[in-house]
Amino acid sequence: MKLRNALLMASAAVMTPLVAHAQEAAENGDPLAEIAAMLASNQAETVFVFNTLLFVISGVLVFWMAAGFAMLEAGFVRSKNVTMQLTKNIGLFSIAAFLYYLIGFNLMYPGDGWMIEGWLGAFSPTVLEAVGVTADAVEDITYASVGSDFFFQLMFCATTASIVSGALAERIKLNSFLVFVVVLTALIYPIQASWTWGEGFLDAAGFLDFAGSTIVHSVGGWAALMGAIILGPRIGKYAKDGKVTPIPGSNLALATLGTFILWMGWFGFNGGSELALGTADAAANVSRVLANTNAAAAAGALAALILTQVLYKKADLTLILNGALGGLVAITAEPLAPGLGMASAIGAVGGVIVVLAVPMLDRMKIDDVVGAVPVHLFAGIWGTIAVVLTNDEANIFTQLYGIVVIGAFVIVTSTVVWLVIKATMGLRVDAEAEVMGLDKTELGMEAYPDFAPGS
Amino acid sequence: MKLRNALLMASAAVMTPLVAHAQEAAENGDPLAEIAAMLASNQAETVFVFNTLLFVISGVLVFWMAAGFAMLEAGFVRSKNVTMQLTKNIGLFSIAAFLYYLIGFNLMYPGDGWMIEGWLGAFSPTVLEAVGVTADAVEDITYASVGSDFFFQLMFCATTASIVSGALAERIKLNSFLVFVVVLTALIYPIQASWTWGEGFLDAAGFLDFAGSTIVHSVGGWAALMGAIILGPRIGKYAKDGKVTPIPGSNLALATLGTFILWMGWFGFNGGSELALGTADAAANVSRVLANTNAAAAAGALAALILTQVLYKKADLTLILNGALGGLVAITAEPLAPGLGMASAIGAVGGVIVVLAVPMLDRMKIDDVVGAVPVHLFAGIWGTIAVVLTNDEANIFTQLYGIVVIGAFVIVTSTVVWLVIKATMGLRVDAEAEVMGLDKTELGMEAYPDFAPGS
Amino acid sequence: MKLRNALLMASAAVMTPLVAHAQEAAENGDPLAEIAAMLASNQAETVFVFNTLLFVISGVLVFWMAAGFAMLEAGFVRSKNVTMQLTKNIGLFSIAAFLYYLIGFNLMYPGDGWMIEGWLGAFSPTVLEAVGVTADAVEDITYASVGSDFFFQLMFCATTASIVSGALAERIKLNSFLVFVVVLTALIYPIQASWTWGEGFLDAAGFLDFAGSTIVHSVGGWAALMGAIILGPRIGKYAKDGKVTPIPGSNLALATLGTFILWMGWFGFNGGSELALGTADAAANVSRVLANTNAAAAAGALAALILTQVLYKKADLTLILNGALGGLVAITAEPLAPGLGMASAIGAVGGVIVVLAVPMLDRMKIDDVVGAVPVHLFAGIWGTIAVVLTNDEANIFTQLYGIVVIGAFVIVTSTVVWLVIKATMGLRVDAEAEVMGLDKTELGMEAYPDFAPGS
Repeated sequence: MKLRNALLMASAAVMTPLVAHAQEAAENGDPLAEIAAMLASNQAETVFVFNTLLFVISGVLVFWMAAGFAMLEAGFVRSKNVTMQLTKNIGLFSIAAFLYYLIGFNLMYPGDGWMIEGWLGAFSPTVLEAVGVTADAVEDITYASVGSDFFFQLMFCATTASIVSGALAERIKLNSFLVFVVVLTALIYPIQASWTWGEGFLDAAGFLDFAGSTIVHSVGGWAALMGAIILGPRIGKYAKDGKVTPIPGSNLALATLGTFILWMGWFGFNGGSELALGTADAAANVSRVLANTNAAAAAGALAALILTQVLYKKADLTLILNGALGGLVAITAEPLAPGLGMASAIGAVGGVIVVLAVPMLDRMKIDDVVGAVPVHLFAGIWGTIAVVLTNDEANIFTQLYGIVVIGAFVIVTSTVVWLVIKATMGLRVDAEAEVMGLDKTELGMEAYPDFAPGS
Repeated sequence: MKLRNALLMASAAVMTPLVAHAQEAAENGDPLAEIAAMLASNQAETVFVFNTLLFVISGVLVFWMAAGFAMLEAGFVRSKNVTMQLTKNIGLFSIAAFLYYLIGFNLMYPGDGWMIEGWLGAFSPTVLEAVGVTADAVEDITYASVGSDFFFQLMFCATTASIVSGALAERIKLNSFLVFVVVLTALIYPIQASWTWGEGFLDAAGFLDFAGSTIVHSVGGWAALMGAIILGPRIGKYAKDGKVTPIPGSNLALATLGTFILWMGWFGFNGGSELALGTADAAANVSRVLANTNAAAAAGALAALILTQVLYKKADLTLILNGALGGLVAITAEPLAPGLGMASAIGAVGGVIVVLAVPMLDRMKIDDVVGAVPVHLFAGIWGTIAVVLTNDEANIFTQLYGIVVIGAFVIVTSTVVWLVIKATMGLRVDAEAEVMGLDKTELGMEAYPDFAPGS
Repeated sequence: MKLRNALLMASAAVMTPLVAHAQEAAENGDPLAEIAAMLASNQAETVFVFNTLLFVISGVLVFWMAAGFAMLEAGFVRSKNVTMQLTKNIGLFSIAAFLYYLIGFNLMYPGDGWMIEGWLGAFSPTVLEAVGVTADAVEDITYASVGSDFFFQLMFCATTASIVSGALAERIKLNSFLVFVVVLTALIYPIQASWTWGEGFLDAAGFLDFAGSTIVHSVGGWAALMGAIILGPRIGKYAKDGKVTPIPGSNLALATLGTFILWMGWFGFNGGSELALGTADAAANVSRVLANTNAAAAAGALAALILTQVLYKKADLTLILNGALGGLVAITAEPLAPGLGMASAIGAVGGVIVVLAVPMLDRMKIDDVVGAVPVHLFAGIWGTIAVVLTNDEANIFTQLYGIVVIGAFVIVTSTVVWLVIKATMGLRVDAEAEVMGLDKTELGMEAYPDFAPGS
């Protein structure tokens, strides 16, 4: 019986012909069976190490996205608000890291410990496997170490918070924003993520979201959109006569660096979401995911490069950067099933959505400083729907169901939280501080003190 | 027979003693043979996963070099052209990604499908292995997944294009440059690369270029040199009396960051070019390649640090950065065979070449904004020749043959393409736009709008 | 009996008992023994590849920390000294790379070749394993390739030197600093590191320092502190009436980027220091180390975010960045044993130490430009002591013994070297050069020449 378990632990496909022999032999006390068991055990351990390594490497790459968001946002805000934006970014990541340990991880992955089956997970801090845990004692030898899983999943939680910070830049109070991050990373993100990835009711319904076009990106996007509406636009952005005043970012080199960092980190984001590496099919799948992710990003950038020249006669770097990100968000719900051509098409549509949605938000006088809503929410919805184009198991109604349920949950919860913060701590700095810049007024520290401001 | 194949697939060294027993046993329907086959199969699958992982990780690192080039070039151009340089860099990468999928990969690796045997590969888009491909069905269980190979090789194609963009900065039109990139990444790069790495006629001749001192770096360098000559120097760089006016880069922090990024990415560039990881010798080789690559880069930087102090009494950061890159390019043709001392020597010569060649180009009034030609072309030629110093299989005449053949091909084809673009779209922005800066005139978007320009 | 041993051998470390059995059995023509031996050999090779891969990946990440220090320091100095700071950073890394090959590695890991047993290792250049080394011929099949070990350890040596450069910024001469780096990386670092990690007398005494809170960070911190004292503060920093004039850094976006890079690189720094990956327990340990490292960094940043608001009513980004680094340094001596809560607590104390120590150094008129001493020395001491909180094998007296012995050695040797350099080459640029900035006066090259200086 123990032998049989050992054998089943290894990749079942190769094992099957051996099982009969080994079982029979084991009953006869045959040394052959012991070798077979050892072989299976070795193979299982190798797969476990590979899977753990995938999570570890991917987790490091997704961590790196925190730096990408920080640079993107620091580049897209005016120089008078850069220190504040950087402070928010390192602050939000640190909060996410602490709260995902304290509450998030077990709320998102309750296993058998659901408080409300399929809807609300468990409240308890994360406990890692013991130091020097043996292969027999690891929580699941067919999967990966708890530490690697936690490390990887934590980064997704932090990413969700990063998405919010850019949209609300240049006018929200530091601590008000960070309090929202506390609720987002401890409760809103993990609860809705448990519904699909924690094997909750949306997973049971068949909702498919490979790496989180909806579960990560749209969630961040919805929270950002609600925040931007409640917070209102920056002073001077929208004139009463309907004229929109562009407020250019202060450092496009940083913004471009941030985009490249995000693109790089996305290989971990999507690649790690294959959740396995140790067999030929898993490894081939991971590489397929990476090739598709890259194709979608490139196509998103290219679509924006072409479309901005067609629409405005000039290539627009900020839209090209956001186009690449839109392509990345779009492919995230299903980076495995498409071929390279289809991945390029899905990414290109993501880029087009971004280029068209940015002015649309401006017409609605919703001031999203970095374009987070077009990139993460709109392209995320597109990507979640596009799953049906390539994955036979996807159903358009189930996909829409997931989009709507998660969207409604985040709209309601984040609106409540934003309004409570507004009513208690206040959300917005006063007008004078906003005009002077948050760096001087709120932090007393400029990002570029040695340089004379332009006219 | 099938069993024997299975066994041979695994590392031959350990397998040999078993083969006889297993074959014999298989003929008798012995379960022992099944175990042996399974063992071989497991081991083969493990090696496949390792090799695939090497390509995936290395591909991510080489992708990162695209960001490195973007930062290096953004730092080396004047602030008035930074947005344009960033736009070119993200544009060229996206074009390379799309065209290498559409044409380049199968043109470079035609397998048995050469249109002209050994000279011209196949025209067809890349098709990845199926989702969930089994170990039996992967294209080559002894190598790596198609997706990982494509992902890795695509990044080399993009690198070649990145090399060109820096040299031609600050005066070339955006779309004219991007059209050149289309031809370079779809045709010029893959065709010449097929001659060696696709097992074409240069490979048959014995030409050795481990990771592309010639095939990637000199190819980019030749295309850049032809472009720089045809395009002509920037206004104000060379006075009629022969005086050279230095045009300092606008942001040396970014340029240094870019160099560190490239150095980091090069570990994937050279390390991944070992093309295998799953056995003890492959793993030891990969680590040897990384140690040598690092030694060569450090020696190139040190050589420039010392030489610029000797020549100019002052250390010159831009030449130190380029010296490190020259060391990296030099070791790229053979990062495996040398010991650490020899690798340091090869890298140091690369650094010296860069320091000496930069003023030489200026004397020839060839305006290479970032030093791409000294770094990638001249140090690339040196590195390709230096293979004979440490690799017994290399032959100096064959190395020169490869350098000349590839050089001639790229000189001719890129000259034709540059001239056709010049005659049709035009290559160069008008003088007024060049003086005002391409960011304002061509893109209407400044990279650093909040900062007052210096005098 | 022999099969029982074969089973025990599943982890590569216990391979020995099988070899005898297998050999004996092979002589008797027993195929079963051959299979068992082959199984063990395959498994050992797989573990070797995993361990080598861990070193290679971790080495690349720790290399990346060199860029992190460069960006952090470039961001924390004034714009007139940025080129110099960048030059020092790429210079020091290159020197470390060359000297660690030439002397450091074998001095640190003498094996059986100690010149003075347990105190002074061997003087000889590093020799890597041969190209294409077989599994039988690698130096230690139970460990990893020499090249990967060298590559990984070299990066630690370079990190030690990076720590010094920030503290002494804006007034030390380039070549005087680089000469110190030569001695530090060739002698001071490897000799003291051999005492613990090279299995010298501190290791025998039971001193525990997992990844180098003391051996790397405090060593760099002591050398920096001695240098800062001997060099004296920057002109204008401390008035005679005791007033401290803050000298703000010129680019907090770069400083934040540098911090994120360091944080990322630390996953390799601590994760790689597990020194093994290829078994379930090793892989689980590595992931545990990464989760703890991240938790400590986040807690350090959070502690600084809260504490600076309590103390100064305003969040202080530079202290938050240094708080994260303080958390990282603190967890480095023991990132494996703690749970996530304890890791957070250890990191938070590291952050608190940094916030409190920065003004303390100012009161002592020790001018540490980037806060290297609080971060690397003080948090390093804390982390080394904190090992006793979670690791049962640690003893508080032994930990203090290690801290004191290594501290005394570095204080004495670095003081001697600083004083010798001061007496011969001179340490400090003249006052005029310091006021004008080192970039113009020492290097003739400004980092941001296109931008007008602020008032």
